[in-house]
Amino acid sequence: MEILIENGTVVPMTGDGRETFRAAVGIRGGRIAMVDRDGSRTGAFRAEAGDRLRVIDAEGKAVMPGLINLHNHVAMALMRSVADDMPLMPWLQEKIWPYEAKLNGDDIYWGAKLGIAEMLMGGTTTFADMYARSQRVGEAVEELGIRAVLAPPFIDGRMEAFEREAVEMIGRYHGSGDGRIGVRIAPHAPYTCSPESIARALRLCERYGVGVHVHVAETQDEIATVRERYGKTPVEYLDDLGVFRYPTLAAHCVHLTGGDMEIMLQRGVTVAYNPQSNMKLASGVAPVAEMLRRGLAVGFGTDGPSSNNDLDMWEELRTGSLLQKVTTGDPTALPAHETLRMATAGGADALGMGDRLGRVAEGMLADLIVVDLRKPHLCPNNDLLSDLAYCGKASDVETVIVDGRIAVEGRKLCTADYAAVCRGVKERVAEIARR
Amino acid sequence: MEILIENGTVVPMTGDGRETFRAAVGIRGGRIAMVDRDGSRTGAFRAEAGDRLRVIDAEGKAVMPGLINLHNHVAMALMRSVADDMPLMPWLQEKIWPYEAKLNGDDIYWGAKLGIAEMLMGGTTTFADMYARSQRVGEAVEELGIRAVLAPPFIDGRMEAFEREAVEMIGRYHGSGDGRIGVRIAPHAPYTCSPESIARALRLCERYGVGVHVHVAETQDEIATVRERYGKTPVEYLDDLGVFRYPTLAAHCVHLTGGDMEIMLQRGVTVAYNPQSNMKLASGVAPVAEMLRRGLAVGFGTDGPSSNNDLDMWEELRTGSLLQKVTTGDPTALPAHETLRMATAGGADALGMGDRLGRVAEGMLADLIVVDLRKPHLCPNNDLLSDLAYCGKASDVETVIVDGRIAVEGRKLCTADYAAVCRGVKERVAEIARR
Repeated sequence: MEILIENGTVVPMTGDGRETFRAAVGIRGGRIAMVDRDGSRTGAFRAEAGDRLRVIDAEGKAVMPGLINLHNHVAMALMRSVADDMPLMPWLQEKIWPYEAKLNGDDIYWGAKLGIAEMLMGGTTTFADMYARSQRVGEAVEELGIRAVLAPPFIDGRMEAFEREAVEMIGRYHGSGDGRIGVRIAPHAPYTCSPESIARALRLCERYGVGVHVHVAETQDEIATVRERYGKTPVEYLDDLGVFRYPTLAAHCVHLTGGDMEIMLQRGVTVAYNPQSNMKLASGVAPVAEMLRRGLAVGFGTDGPSSNNDLDMWEELRTGSLLQKVTTGDPTALPAHETLRMATAGGADALGMGDRLGRVAEGMLADLIVVDLRKPHLCPNNDLLSDLAYCGKASDVETVIVDGRIAVEGRKLCTADYAAVCRGVKERVAEIARR
Repeated sequence: MEILIENGTVVPMTGDGRETFRAAVGIRGGRIAMVDRDGSRTGAFRAEAGDRLRVIDAEGKAVMPGLINLHNHVAMALMRSVADDMPLMPWLQEKIWPYEAKLNGDDIYWGAKLGIAEMLMGGTTTFADMYARSQRVGEAVEELGIRAVLAPPFIDGRMEAFEREAVEMIGRYHGSGDGRIGVRIAPHAPYTCSPESIARALRLCERYGVGVHVHVAETQDEIATVRERYGKTPVEYLDDLGVFRYPTLAAHCVHLTGGDMEIMLQRGVTVAYNPQSNMKLASGVAPVAEMLRRGLAVGFGTDGPSSNNDLDMWEELRTGSLLQKVTTGDPTALPAHETLRMATAGGADALGMGDRLGRVAEGMLADLIVVDLRKPHLCPNNDLLSDLAYCGKASDVETVIVDGRIAVEGRKLCTADYAAVCRGVKERVAEIARR
């Protein structure tokens, strides 16, 4: 099917993200085949597609790249609002881990479906995930049609099970879903993974040519623990073990030294900034303005729905921008265009997919969203980029296209029966409570 | 008209805000006439109302007090996204003030209509406002049916015009709209109002029995200026002038000393916490957790739509809670129930209206909202208060009742033609640009 999006204002997120223009966007074979600014090629595109053409009228709407959520544990949607307003360790030890111990693969499949439905309906078209039994997350990804980079995680003491899962996961899902799914390996964190475990995991990276997704420097406790055990920062620890020889996406990076940032820049380590989760757990504020100044690739992540508690990238990018302004004392930090760029093109760059993802330009993967601007909070449209960054909401997203296929239309999820997903999840949650 | 809201889960925000229960809520004569938890009185209420009864089915929905926005310059919706990512003084001097100098009364009326439409559609039922030509804001308030406390502001050099406006405003609007509108007097800020101006304004408070709405301690610049001029903190300056002998709502309060908080507590000064505006302008973080610990009444405000850039109280309350957690390092700060209480009952308390507003209880003013919980980001409903505080969105608000009348139903504004409001505003904005 070819798709033609007409009459919209395109926010392409190419370059520094400042440019916007009116253009018709043509989609063919999962790619953006045409961005026609002067109307000279739309007729031919239309004629060539003939009966197969699906036309979307985007008058009064913005056409922009889908949002990219760089850090998630999506299946934890099951556990949304199960435990809040608690310090990190009691939260994990008393609530989250005992709950997770009860989960089976079907639970994870249903939790993932719920979280993916929420993300798609809010305009997120790609997410990077880290969770056990990630095959079941992969199943939900294939079914609902989102793009994903899935990472089976390991911690010390579970390496045999992890290695089996990782090999199976890579074989079954790396490149699956018409190439929508990629796999990485996830050492959980420097404080939960010994040098021996990490060395074993890196052999998989080497053998299968996959990258790494890892929690880094999330809390002061982690810094102290790693310092005590190894006399290093978490970044130095991972670097010395050779982790950064593989493409590495580092989540959180709240507590970094200047030396850490220098290592990350030299090794091409990229960063998932999770402002709401870091605020909610009182972990701290990642020095994102400084990372950007140094040239690091940084995008946004929501973290899992147990610590956020939703998967709303609009709130994440807005809060993330405001938080940098207030903590640096600089109201020009993370301006609107930069924030939107980080949530789209910057996220693609952080995944090493910037050559094909996160921008509305000819030849790029057709992951697009259409945002309805005819809302009270977006009127009178004085500045489109400011409106999107500071006022845009998940509920403004009207149409979502992933890999050239329509996943959400008229705010309705097309790839699953959403009410049935909710019912399924509620049934499972009730059953888990009885276990 | 009587209204009966059936089958919903009531989040009454009485007491500490933790309680929720299923009940039928009956509304009569602008008041909550019945909260029937055991079903014993609903039949009689229904019979008595007869044909006049309007029934709202709230199955799968929450019934809670409308949100109270304590600090706004609503007409600035005209200027939404006109200028962003700038420091406060250039923002004011180069962008906002030159724009405001071009505005006439009709512009302000249309800007207020837009902002009020946005607030109502997002579940805000009361707002406190401060803006010039506030009569025109009053006109929009009467028309759209929201509740408001409007404050004509003054700065040095414009006292004659202000006094005329204030007297007219009090005469025309104090107690108007069936009592929905109240008037206060607004010294703009300690750095823009001399002791002489403030003394003149307080004579109006004395003569007409009205309270005060004032910006206090918003930036470090203000602290330095007031210190240099008067050798005092802004709070001490206002206190020494006798401002706090009148009920005072103090907006921002970002930079307070322990002594300031003590004075405010003794004088009953209440606080509008505007986290998103303070973050965006890099003003700082108000010490709200400490204010609450000391016993001050604090609620949330959005500030004007030029510095936020929307009027979304859900984002305000969520970001405000997360910001306190991360800046105090305490993840238990501003927990879900406390945050929701501040946005409803706490806001009413801060306006000195806690005896009649901000709670779902018999005898209270009928300002209620019905929130649809059947949304992906609210599934699986593990904890209603956490879901509302950490995941609730303006777009989840389905029905809004102010003073016993339905203002929004099925997410549609009932009291104005919203599309016409947007058209009117856009026409004015285009015309202002030509002035």
